[in-house]
Amino acid sequence: MIQQIIEQQFDEMVAIRRHLHMYPELSFQEVETPKYIANYHRKLGLDVREQVGGRGVVATLRGSKPGKTVAIRADFDALPIQEENDVAYKSKNDGVMHACGHDGHTAIALGIARALVQMQDELAGNVVFIHQFAEELAPGGAIAMIEDNCLHGVDVIFGTHLWAPMPLGDIQVRSGAIMAAADAVYIDIQGRGGHGAEPHETVDAVLTGSQFVTAAQSIVSRKVDPLKSAVYSIGHFEAINSFNVIADRVHLKGTVRTFDDDVRDLMEREIETTLKAVCDAAGATYTYTYNRGYPPVVNHEAETEFIASCAKQYGNVSVTPPMMIGEDFGYYMQHVPGTFFFTGARKPEADVVYPHHHARFEFDERAMIVAANVLLHATIEYLASSNGDA
Amino acid sequence: MIQQIIEQQFDEMVAIRRHLHMYPELSFQEVETPKYIANYHRKLGLDVREQVGGRGVVATLRGSKPGKTVAIRADFDALPIQEENDVAYKSKNDGVMHACGHDGHTAIALGIARALVQMQDELAGNVVFIHQFAEELAPGGAIAMIEDNCLHGVDVIFGTHLWAPMPLGDIQVRSGAIMAAADAVYIDIQGRGGHGAEPHETVDAVLTGSQFVTAAQSIVSRKVDPLKSAVYSIGHFEAINSFNVIADRVHLKGTVRTFDDDVRDLMEREIETTLKAVCDAAGATYTYTYNRGYPPVVNHEAETEFIASCAKQYGNVSVTPPMMIGEDFGYYMQHVPGTFFFTGARKPEADVVYPHHHARFEFDERAMIVAANVLLHATIEYLASSNGDA
Amino acid sequence: MIQQIIEQQFDEMVAIRRHLHMYPELSFQEVETPKYIANYHRKLGLDVREQVGGRGVVATLRGSKPGKTVAIRADFDALPIQEENDVAYKSKNDGVMHACGHDGHTAIALGIARALVQMQDELAGNVVFIHQFAEELAPGGAIAMIEDNCLHGVDVIFGTHLWAPMPLGDIQVRSGAIMAAADAVYIDIQGRGGHGAEPHETVDAVLTGSQFVTAAQSIVSRKVDPLKSAVYSIGHFEAINSFNVIADRVHLKGTVRTFDDDVRDLMEREIETTLKAVCDAAGATYTYTYNRGYPPVVNHEAETEFIASCAKQYGNVSVTPPMMIGEDFGYYMQHVPGTFFFTGARKPEADVVYPHHHARFEFDERAMIVAANVLLHATIEYLASSNGDA
Amino acid sequence: MIQQIIEQQFDEMVAIRRHLHMYPELSFQEVETPKYIANYHRKLGLDVREQVGGRGVVATLRGSKPGKTVAIRADFDALPIQEENDVAYKSKNDGVMHACGHDGHTAIALGIARALVQMQDELAGNVVFIHQFAEELAPGGAIAMIEDNCLHGVDVIFGTHLWAPMPLGDIQVRSGAIMAAADAVYIDIQGRGGHGAEPHETVDAVLTGSQFVTAAQSIVSRKVDPLKSAVYSIGHFEAINSFNVIADRVHLKGTVRTFDDDVRDLMEREIETTLKAVCDAAGATYTYTYNRGYPPVVNHEAETEFIASCAKQYGNVSVTPPMMIGEDFGYYMQHVPGTFFFTGARKPEADVVYPHHHARFEFDERAMIVAANVLLHATIEYLASSNGDA
Repeated sequence: MIQQIIEQQFDEMVAIRRHLHMYPELSFQEVETPKYIANYHRKLGLDVREQVGGRGVVATLRGSKPGKTVAIRADFDALPIQEENDVAYKSKNDGVMHACGHDGHTAIALGIARALVQMQDELAGNVVFIHQFAEELAPGGAIAMIEDNCLHGVDVIFGTHLWAPMPLGDIQVRSGAIMAAADAVYIDIQGRGGHGAEPHETVDAVLTGSQFVTAAQSIVSRKVDPLKSAVYSIGHFEAINSFNVIADRVHLKGTVRTFDDDVRDLMEREIETTLKAVCDAAGATYTYTYNRGYPPVVNHEAETEFIASCAKQYGNVSVTPPMMIGEDFGYYMQHVPGTFFFTGARKPEADVVYPHHHARFEFDERAMIVAANVLLHATIEYLASSNGDA
Repeated sequence: MIQQIIEQQFDEMVAIRRHLHMYPELSFQEVETPKYIANYHRKLGLDVREQVGGRGVVATLRGSKPGKTVAIRADFDALPIQEENDVAYKSKNDGVMHACGHDGHTAIALGIARALVQMQDELAGNVVFIHQFAEELAPGGAIAMIEDNCLHGVDVIFGTHLWAPMPLGDIQVRSGAIMAAADAVYIDIQGRGGHGAEPHETVDAVLTGSQFVTAAQSIVSRKVDPLKSAVYSIGHFEAINSFNVIADRVHLKGTVRTFDDDVRDLMEREIETTLKAVCDAAGATYTYTYNRGYPPVVNHEAETEFIASCAKQYGNVSVTPPMMIGEDFGYYMQHVPGTFFFTGARKPEADVVYPHHHARFEFDERAMIVAANVLLHATIEYLASSNGDA
Repeated sequence: MIQQIIEQQFDEMVAIRRHLHMYPELSFQEVETPKYIANYHRKLGLDVREQVGGRGVVATLRGSKPGKTVAIRADFDALPIQEENDVAYKSKNDGVMHACGHDGHTAIALGIARALVQMQDELAGNVVFIHQFAEELAPGGAIAMIEDNCLHGVDVIFGTHLWAPMPLGDIQVRSGAIMAAADAVYIDIQGRGGHGAEPHETVDAVLTGSQFVTAAQSIVSRKVDPLKSAVYSIGHFEAINSFNVIADRVHLKGTVRTFDDDVRDLMEREIETTLKAVCDAAGATYTYTYNRGYPPVVNHEAETEFIASCAKQYGNVSVTPPMMIGEDFGYYMQHVPGTFFFTGARKPEADVVYPHHHARFEFDERAMIVAANVLLHATIEYLASSNGDA
Repeated sequence: MIQQIIEQQFDEMVAIRRHLHMYPELSFQEVETPKYIANYHRKLGLDVREQVGGRGVVATLRGSKPGKTVAIRADFDALPIQEENDVAYKSKNDGVMHACGHDGHTAIALGIARALVQMQDELAGNVVFIHQFAEELAPGGAIAMIEDNCLHGVDVIFGTHLWAPMPLGDIQVRSGAIMAAADAVYIDIQGRGGHGAEPHETVDAVLTGSQFVTAAQSIVSRKVDPLKSAVYSIGHFEAINSFNVIADRVHLKGTVRTFDDDVRDLMEREIETTLKAVCDAAGATYTYTYNRGYPPVVNHEAETEFIASCAKQYGNVSVTPPMMIGEDFGYYMQHVPGTFFFTGARKPEADVVYPHHHARFEFDERAMIVAANVLLHATIEYLASSNGDA
């Protein structure tokens, strides 16, 4: 039944998605997109709150009977990429592109709203659509929307990401950490420069930086629980000088990825411990900046099992290993239980699958049906089953 | 007596020096300077050969009696520096300056020639003036002049460098290595780049470079004879990337300074041994370029003792520790015995002493008297004393 | 019902366990224990095969109806430890002790056999009791017993370990890797010794060893998938010399722990890659020995979920994180599906809990009831439920 | 003339040397040797002071005319070695041997005294024979003898070492540092031990020790003036454990060799700086003991040139590179000018030359003639030449 209802929404979802695809807006610069969303919900008759936390939209559909409240979150910002796809609905905004599928996420949510309006009479409880701005750019929109009460009254939250590398029809869930915390580390080491022939008159910043990079390997190899995951990659090492000098200073940039708060704290702390020690040995000084990006996305166990059981009839459900990329959905689940899952969206006919954030990114629009099926089913079943104890 | 003769040349030497100072020419671009030198010698009556090895001038003064042949070498190129001194004889060539004292070296040689012409009748043997181009820029002018036979018939060679940081009146000699070989090392390490979250899919070039810099320390600390000197400084480490990637490639630049050929060979060999090993461990590849600069200047013992004994009556003679800078005088002493010494040229009244190669470099012109005294004395005494066994 | 049947076996299981505890036998030296086990099964009427793979016993109970075959594995060797417990059933064999609970494992299996005999008429299928010798000492007894066909006809295998640090009543399961591969690494680095004052005449083995230990950190930090686990610990570094020499040679010993075959292969390969590179850089040579211990114990998903569902009524079931210790049960599951779980056996009244392999190790004998309940329940249910499709 | 006088003493010197060789005494345990020396000088008529600084002997020969005072130093202790030479004068004291030639040094001094007594009438000035105990064992006898005024009135001091690896007839001198400061470094690093599978619960002492050894390389490579010498060799690295643990603690022993006080201070300071930093990074603690051995032996320039000129007629004089071994003669030259030189003593017929401190050490006794010639000549000429200005 749900399958049927959603399939009836497909054309509409495609139309919405393509419209949004043509008019993408950058994170923290969204103007027309939230207006479009708000108008859509208003026409459906939902309660709409705009400018939530800045640029977010929250739309509430109230069932005719009392009950619990389910939130569905969809992000709507785009990326600073020039689209290279040759499609009818190609981005009309130069240098901006929906290259991550947030246009699809929004269309799914609006499609579900449109479907639910038809069932409003039988609904015991409420459904809150959280349309989030600025997922792509830290600090993201989630925190501000939460502070602006978008989770008021919410009992559970669900979200999904269309995933182009995964076959259409696959659904991947995971209890616990499913996406990593992605932090940035900036380091300056200040030595004392000089002539290449006179090392004893200097503090060699290139050597000190190199010793730090080398020494930092033992943080992951020895200080992190081997049953837990952590990565510290230093991608940038900058000391641009003539061949015959000793460098005054080096600048390093890198990233830390973790799934557990204690490991994340340990990394932040131990990187500096190592840095300080290496600089002490050399007689150098340093500045250290650890910028926390999004927290890990940690799914709740019961909600994940629940969504997995709902999803079974709409696709092949499997457990994904944790992914090292970041997403700000985790903030919501610090307040209410919930789960985030991946919906396979690979075009079966595609020769090459371009990754998310690529100028030729595409997804199979039928994946919107799969995601909407699961989310609508979960919403209805959650409200129905929790009615008894509500 | 020598002292007197030289003092009579002082005004002439000053005039020569200031003329050259006004019209400096860059290494390998000298045109007017060698003409000027050749004309000067010709007027004095010496045999002159021009364009020796390209742009060099060799002038020979033959004594009336047979004997040995002494060579005096003076370099005459200038530097790409815009002079900032406010003197009457300031450089008239924009962006070019005699900022190392080669104008003085040339004036000394010409002053000695002028003095010797007066003594030609008593002279048993010959004096060859080697006016060298392009000392400042590797590969230098010495090799080409030697190949063009500038040392033909020469029994001994002497040279000096006016040295502005050293007090006027001081003369520094050293038997054995007095100036270092100064080489350049260029390294590219090629790893395999990737996302900062996926180190196992990459070969981390920043880590590999850092491990190399760290590992290379044990070449000097363990593989070089602790009674000998070697420096390997890496001043440039370049891996410019986003914070969240793993670097594909790093570029390193550095310098090696040594005094002994075997240590120099060892450094060239062991740096690559270490580089290869570190890259092997990581799965990276590399390119390695070791550019040899000038060889060390290695003074001959007897000639150094001889010049020291000659110098005693004209200044305070002491032994200098070896200096880590380079000079191509060493090439001559690979063919004939000789010695190279430093003549103090600090202006007593100077508040600040600007180093050689500085836009405000100056030297006390009276140092030309000291240097000329020593060189003339040595020339005469060498010819006189070796006459017996000639 | 099962609960009741097993509780009736408790006195018997205690008697068996205490008898075995008094007469422990070392790995690969078991003589009386397998005889005792074989006799016990024979008296119960099972088919018994002795000296399986050397010292193992396999007893088969055939149900009256055809069906699948369930194997239950129990190990029976003891440890070279002098018991320090003051109990009536203290070990009578000097220096040998059941300090890991294998006496309990055997008693559980025999108790289950005794219980099953009563139900033989209703049983559709067979139960095979695999009594394994030499679990404590690599290469273990499992391989030899498998090669001697102990798994002939077996459809599924179950096993448990009584676990003294875990509360009585707890049961821990895990799908996938539950116990690590535990390997040993032995390294000799051969340099060239000499006087401490003359490093350039030597190849410094202490430095080379230290560089290896340091460099090896980046294997875990960079080359292993951060979502997987690996440990390389070097506990032994031996270079015993006078203070004023340079070491000729160092000897290192360490251990590698992994859960995945590909990570294990990578560790074996990359440790040598790093070792070779460090030795190449130094001019040293090496010998490298990587001794594989037991493979990881990798539980099958369906069988683990099955045992978890059976276990729920007999205790608190939870998921354990993987454990870094080793066990040769993994070999069986390379041939047939199965699962291995932990049965909590901490004495509630104990002030101090002595770990396994300790001279004062003890476990709560009531844990045998829990384990036997789960295994009997699983056996009966497995045979019953698979009957239909048998 | 001197040559002749000394040759007349040869038999006597041999007799003395062989007597002492038969009755060697360990450092700080000398009883009979100083008695023997004192008696010898007394019989010659010199002023003798015994128990100087403990066990030393100072004998003064006063010339008939006033003048300067020359000191000749000879050490007289032996080593804890069981002699393996098969000679008539083999050591009669079990486990004690003159395996470094101090018996020869004493015989030379007594021979010179015997020669000088014959010339006492012409002598303008005094000669002081400083017979030193305990050169072989830090803190040595020199300091105590100096504190007990053995240098009272002394203007210059000379000493030599018979050197078995150098050909008989060779004499090696060096101005400046001729022998190194030889210090000992003891380090304990205290981590926190644990199971090899659980690095995150430990502080890995083997890794910390290895990181220290590696990091310490950059002290010599970067912090020491490349024109100066320094060695830090770590010969002993001890962490004896089972393969599957993480080490609690490591013990390191090593030596530092330097020629300059500032470099020595730098090494002592920077080793600890590096050690502290590496331990800080790891969370380990340490103890650090830097035991200073003898200071470098730094010859004075004028005195060295003087002795070289005296030595020319008695052997082949050359300049030795500095030697990395230690000797406490340096203490005397911190108070009075002087020089220390090596006298070649290799037996021309020897197939194998056993090094000093070897159970089969031997030297050619004719070397005593060479050394005595040089020292007597220098003494007489010093007193004669300085008479004018005395």
